[in-house]
Amino acid sequence: VHDDLPAMDDDALRRGKPSVHKAFSEATAILVGDALQSLAFQCLSQQKSSLTAETKLTMIEILSEATGVEGMTGGQAMDLKAECHDVKLKSLENIHRLKTGALIKASIRLGALCNPKTTDKQFTILENFADNIGLAFQVQDDILDEIGDTITLGKPQGSDRAQSKATYVSLLGLDEARKKATNLSKDAIDSLAELSVSANVLRELASFVVNRIR
Amino acid sequence: VHDDLPAMDDDALRRGKPSVHKAFSEATAILVGDALQSLAFQCLSQQKSSLTAETKLTMIEILSEATGVEGMTGGQAMDLKAECHDVKLKSLENIHRLKTGALIKASIRLGALCNPKTTDKQFTILENFADNIGLAFQVQDDILDEIGDTITLGKPQGSDRAQSKATYVSLLGLDEARKKATNLSKDAIDSLAELSVSANVLRELASFVVNRIR
Repeated sequence: VHDDLPAMDDDALRRGKPSVHKAFSEATAILVGDALQSLAFQCLSQQKSSLTAETKLTMIEILSEATGVEGMTGGQAMDLKAECHDVKLKSLENIHRLKTGALIKASIRLGALCNPKTTDKQFTILENFADNIGLAFQVQDDILDEIGDTITLGKPQGSDRAQSKATYVSLLGLDEARKKATNLSKDAIDSLAELSVSANVLRELASFVVNRIR
Repeated sequence: VHDDLPAMDDDALRRGKPSVHKAFSEATAILVGDALQSLAFQCLSQQKSSLTAETKLTMIEILSEATGVEGMTGGQAMDLKAECHDVKLKSLENIHRLKTGALIKASIRLGALCNPKTTDKQFTILENFADNIGLAFQVQDDILDEIGDTITLGKPQGSDRAQSKATYVSLLGLDEARKKATNLSKDAIDSLAELSVSANVLRELASFVVNRIR
């Protein structure tokens, strides 16, 4: 569509703006990442909420697991390794469960912990919801990488394909990938039925992740 | 001394072994750093000690401050910026207080917090001790960068000078830098006199930082 755009490397553009390492430098981008990671734990440890110290510790535990080897960082490392190998659907799902899913799930769990009245059952329902929208988000990402255009996406279109990375589209085909995203979103919404509290914002979120065009 | 060594970039060697980004890749090194940062907070939040949840939260607060913008990461960013500018002694001290000093101080503070009987006075004495050895460590680092050899150091000798970076040696001269390191170590040891507990390990540490040859 936009053949007149200059060639860009995969990471040059995010949300239509130059990524931090392009606008400043790689060293700056790495340092900002480190600083933000520390800041997240600082915020959780210094929060002035009425939550108990035990709950605040649990929140820190959840975030540290979600960002570490058993979460985002581990998933990113597996994704890095997978670039050189053929990836099966199960591996791809595992990578995304860690790389993007773990932090989405942590956000939902942290939100649920903010209310001391959240029951164990509600907590489980919300975790299940988070698993489904986390995966749906990633499937939609792969679909947009295939069919979106760079201007709308705000990042270079087709970059995963250009790197010959396995995606849900390359493994399932476009139609099946779309079905998968829709089903995951539907499962997420259905799972909220027994939550016993209003959850329309969550339903909108589950629709958004598969209807977004960027 | 070892003129026959191949030329190395500044970061290729650490403790006589290839640095992580040389042995593996830059992406791997960055991910390992991220994972270890998360792991530190995970350890502090999951510790099975008999300390109160409040004390554990305080420990996380201390570590997050020491590693973030007000600590190591901020100091590293200032150091990066300073490579392009003339640096005065006061700025150099501020950079090192954050870049290396903050984490050394946090280690001492976390150790002191492990004993609930530590008094406020003892805590202050230990913080003062940490400030002094943190700075002494850095001055000695600059001295070794000037006079050490690559094999003993385990990292490329003269690398700071090669980058025209301001060091205590370049700003004060070698003799004054040595005096400064010795005085800081002596101040650290003297400050322990009123601690009212055996602190020989700390005295040895204060000697070690200025007598080390690598």
